[in-house]
Amino acid sequence: MCAEGHTSACLTTNPGQAGAAYGYPHKGGYQGAQTELLRVPFADANCLKLPGEPGDAWEDDFVLLADAFPTGYHATGIIDIAPGDTVVVFGAGAVGLLAAYSARLRGAARVYSVDAISERLEKAGELGAIPINFLRGDPVEQIKEHQSKWRSGPAFRQEKPLSGVTCAIDAIGFQARSKTDYTKEDALWVTEAIAELINPAGRVAIIGVWPAADPNGVLPSLKEGKLTVPWSKLFNKNVSIAMGRDDDKRWNRKLRDMIINGAAKPSGVVSHRFPLDRAPDAFAKFDARQDGYVKVVLKPA
Amino acid sequence: MCAEGHTSACLTTNPGQAGAAYGYPHKGGYQGAQTELLRVPFADANCLKLPGEPGDAWEDDFVLLADAFPTGYHATGIIDIAPGDTVVVFGAGAVGLLAAYSARLRGAARVYSVDAISERLEKAGELGAIPINFLRGDPVEQIKEHQSKWRSGPAFRQEKPLSGVTCAIDAIGFQARSKTDYTKEDALWVTEAIAELINPAGRVAIIGVWPAADPNGVLPSLKEGKLTVPWSKLFNKNVSIAMGRDDDKRWNRKLRDMIINGAAKPSGVVSHRFPLDRAPDAFAKFDARQDGYVKVVLKPA
Amino acid sequence: MCAEGHTSACLTTNPGQAGAAYGYPHKGGYQGAQTELLRVPFADANCLKLPGEPGDAWEDDFVLLADAFPTGYHATGIIDIAPGDTVVVFGAGAVGLLAAYSARLRGAARVYSVDAISERLEKAGELGAIPINFLRGDPVEQIKEHQSKWRSGPAFRQEKPLSGVTCAIDAIGFQARSKTDYTKEDALWVTEAIAELINPAGRVAIIGVWPAADPNGVLPSLKEGKLTVPWSKLFNKNVSIAMGRDDDKRWNRKLRDMIINGAAKPSGVVSHRFPLDRAPDAFAKFDARQDGYVKVVLKPA
Amino acid sequence: MCAEGHTSACLTTNPGQAGAAYGYPHKGGYQGAQTELLRVPFADANCLKLPGEPGDAWEDDFVLLADAFPTGYHATGIIDIAPGDTVVVFGAGAVGLLAAYSARLRGAARVYSVDAISERLEKAGELGAIPINFLRGDPVEQIKEHQSKWRSGPAFRQEKPLSGVTCAIDAIGFQARSKTDYTKEDALWVTEAIAELINPAGRVAIIGVWPAADPNGVLPSLKEGKLTVPWSKLFNKNVSIAMGRDDDKRWNRKLRDMIINGAAKPSGVVSHRFPLDRAPDAFAKFDARQDGYVKVVLKPA
Repeated sequence: MCAEGHTSACLTTNPGQAGAAYGYPHKGGYQGAQTELLRVPFADANCLKLPGEPGDAWEDDFVLLADAFPTGYHATGIIDIAPGDTVVVFGAGAVGLLAAYSARLRGAARVYSVDAISERLEKAGELGAIPINFLRGDPVEQIKEHQSKWRSGPAFRQEKPLSGVTCAIDAIGFQARSKTDYTKEDALWVTEAIAELINPAGRVAIIGVWPAADPNGVLPSLKEGKLTVPWSKLFNKNVSIAMGRDDDKRWNRKLRDMIINGAAKPSGVVSHRFPLDRAPDAFAKFDARQDGYVKVVLKPA
Repeated sequence: MCAEGHTSACLTTNPGQAGAAYGYPHKGGYQGAQTELLRVPFADANCLKLPGEPGDAWEDDFVLLADAFPTGYHATGIIDIAPGDTVVVFGAGAVGLLAAYSARLRGAARVYSVDAISERLEKAGELGAIPINFLRGDPVEQIKEHQSKWRSGPAFRQEKPLSGVTCAIDAIGFQARSKTDYTKEDALWVTEAIAELINPAGRVAIIGVWPAADPNGVLPSLKEGKLTVPWSKLFNKNVSIAMGRDDDKRWNRKLRDMIINGAAKPSGVVSHRFPLDRAPDAFAKFDARQDGYVKVVLKPA
Repeated sequence: MCAEGHTSACLTTNPGQAGAAYGYPHKGGYQGAQTELLRVPFADANCLKLPGEPGDAWEDDFVLLADAFPTGYHATGIIDIAPGDTVVVFGAGAVGLLAAYSARLRGAARVYSVDAISERLEKAGELGAIPINFLRGDPVEQIKEHQSKWRSGPAFRQEKPLSGVTCAIDAIGFQARSKTDYTKEDALWVTEAIAELINPAGRVAIIGVWPAADPNGVLPSLKEGKLTVPWSKLFNKNVSIAMGRDDDKRWNRKLRDMIINGAAKPSGVVSHRFPLDRAPDAFAKFDARQDGYVKVVLKPA
Repeated sequence: MCAEGHTSACLTTNPGQAGAAYGYPHKGGYQGAQTELLRVPFADANCLKLPGEPGDAWEDDFVLLADAFPTGYHATGIIDIAPGDTVVVFGAGAVGLLAAYSARLRGAARVYSVDAISERLEKAGELGAIPINFLRGDPVEQIKEHQSKWRSGPAFRQEKPLSGVTCAIDAIGFQARSKTDYTKEDALWVTEAIAELINPAGRVAIIGVWPAADPNGVLPSLKEGKLTVPWSKLFNKNVSIAMGRDDDKRWNRKLRDMIINGAAKPSGVVSHRFPLDRAPDAFAKFDARQDGYVKVVLKPA
């Protein structure tokens, strides 16, 4: 798998299944990584060489190389986002923000970032995306209206099917909040919105987590890890979909080199920095989407 | 769209929508093409140069260039089937058979063809695929057992997640028959089987037709063109999915050149040849899966 | 050819040969395009829809869509420049500058622009590249020294073969000036420098013009259109090389959309704007690399 | 490098340079591999799992996985040979033959194999290629004539530039024999022939060895590892060129799976099998192109 670039489908680190990850259910029993010292299995293959010393200017950028930056970038890499593309990213958590940021790095003409939390949407704007608050009106309508302004005029009059976007990223996953009532979950609407917004021959990346089963799913199908999707609409638009967890090793050297060169600064998504012992409190606040906890960096010792 | 190879998402032939096709609902109002004379819109762009004379040895092969061969090939092209791949094709109608055949042409190591009609499965065997009758036992189990024989022994003992296939093609679509009762429809099981069979990092092509809506769908979701799919399983295997109708122009010259060179002989799928006036009867028999009507070629005049 | 994206190898516009172009020897006998009115063969296939009115803010950007911008972009597209790449572009005329600019648009970590004319190098700096004056010291040494600063330190100590760049573009062609005497031609040194600078598994684009024959070539081989290249060095580094003229139609819609979105502003390379009747004088000055004539836009009427 | 699939440009096995190989000058000082026992550096990363026991039916096929089969396949992989392509392979030694065979595996419509030794050309024919003896007339003319028969008739009358092939492979390298006098070397003609034969937008793979320097080169430039190539012709045809040594790890699992499945049988190129102690004699005869020594397998013990 490694030799083909599919490092997240490793057959060695989690025998009998594909893939392993720290703090991820069913991914090899490795506990979470918020700790002072860490055991790294297959470290000679997994670790990434970093220049500099702890405390250097790049430290927070390098921390994000461990997961959020390559995961966000992965979404843009597996669907080959390139200059001329128009992109919508659902979810403006750290991964969604860095997906939007990566789309800009790869030259996307226009990137929309959809969320409902103002601090996240502010970050999205700082990183070069157009923020769309999904509680302030149907996000599909908001984006189509915005797009049609740009593509109006006689030159584009015939191209009605192109009023959407060429690429879409689901960076939310199974715990999406309802777009009509933020206190409730609605796992279905994001995929519906993507199918509605995507242009013919468009490309979709699904990187928000979809666990094997969701005991709290609001529908029987969701409890079994199944989703009812607008299959016909996707089919009739000739859409392609790339799914799954990040292949870190496929991207992380490139992203490190972007950081060292000053061509990328992913730490722009960090909202808070704390010593390690404040982790429990930070997790609680992050979980409650409270006080603008977009992304927290924990500093051991 | 044409310039990007997405010829089936043409914005010109069916104004206001993407794509047009003869005899396909909502695809531009062009009637079916079983006729002596045919009006070809945008003929300068759409037609393909063919050598020879009517009645030549290649005639039936060229007839299949109009739809079934490029559609089958499309499925293998959009998921880059190459030497080393193992492939399952659900459906052994003309398109499914030619998808299996195309997988062999592209060098797939092994191809399974899943159907329930014996004449089709025979053709599959002739074209180099391993026939799997889905009424004679769960096709997932049949294929996994076959695969595990091949991958048994100490060398492969650790690679449990690789007991499936690297590529899967749905060449059936919304009208799939139930695998327990062939007289009934069951639109769900093929996608379930694919999710179960596909290896981590596998690629899936969906080319069987999924119409915008299916008034006869056996579930409310199907009536709306929605399908409940094992999204979590596909996500956790890092699967990619390519969907939609064939981009003929992207492949048909290449396939023509294969035919002229003797490197491909798609007419192997043809089971019957009739004059045009026997079309109604042939359609009826084909529809009823009767008398081994796999693929009929109609000869005008 | 069009259907495969190779629009510059068209078999229709220049019968008996591949490709046609305005004002380009042996490319179909179409005269140059500096004129008030222009006949466009196959206009329905070749023209690009543009929004707006003559005189709009985008006018000069759109003018560059006719040749220089897609040609520069082509160089970055055919070798898939992406985030993490380090790039050197030889030649900072309009095409070379827009190749460097395109490399930045596609996310390259670092771009070097090599030339000897100060106004061009200034533009290169404005467009985000690091200017290298090849008369002020061997450009290979200048770039390797710059690169080694960036990759110094214990983390990179073992990676000696990576002191060069991952991508190189020749935007000069057969009329390269000598790096020791700018008044003379030396067609060989750029390819030599590329072979020296490129990292193992690096990618090279050759877009500077190499005419079928060069009667003024300083070597007998050059007169015949042949070049003596460090073939062994390129082979032993596993280099790939993509050559040739721009496939406009493959890129120009995407680049138009970048312009309309404000994501690209190629007119940054324009140094002068004149009415059409000053063309002869402007050509003379441009040819003499005089008065900072980097790129001239001529306005008819 | 490994993580990007460029396993032959490894930075670890040959410190200070890219790439290592057994018995290859300047590739890490590893002696040749014709031996009973072998030390394998980085064996955990380099070795390939094989099923079965020594002496099994696949043994000779697996032996070829060590070098010749993946090298031949590499040539077809780096230029994406696919159905519809027409291919010429210069050189019908073991690697050239397996390149021709791999082109067939990948579905090429037509493959020409160019050499001057009858036993090799016979093997080429057995493996599905059209043999061309370059001593019996200019190989470019032989192939163009053969191609024009295939593409004759009114349908193709206008497509004059397409009388060549879409893909070309140099599997000879620096020690090419002259096409007019087989006793002499002529390193230039193969590249010239490729430039002449290749169609516009064609793809070329250079896998025959080109050492850093050739002290016996018949031209001063060849002594320095430089080759005079028809650069202008390649440029004006928009050709792309991929060069270098095989990335074994990128292909060898796939090829192993082809063998196990019965989809590939590379041992067809083996002409002789001997115990290890006959190696010196076999090398001498192979070197002298004597007695039909196409490919020898040595059996230790």
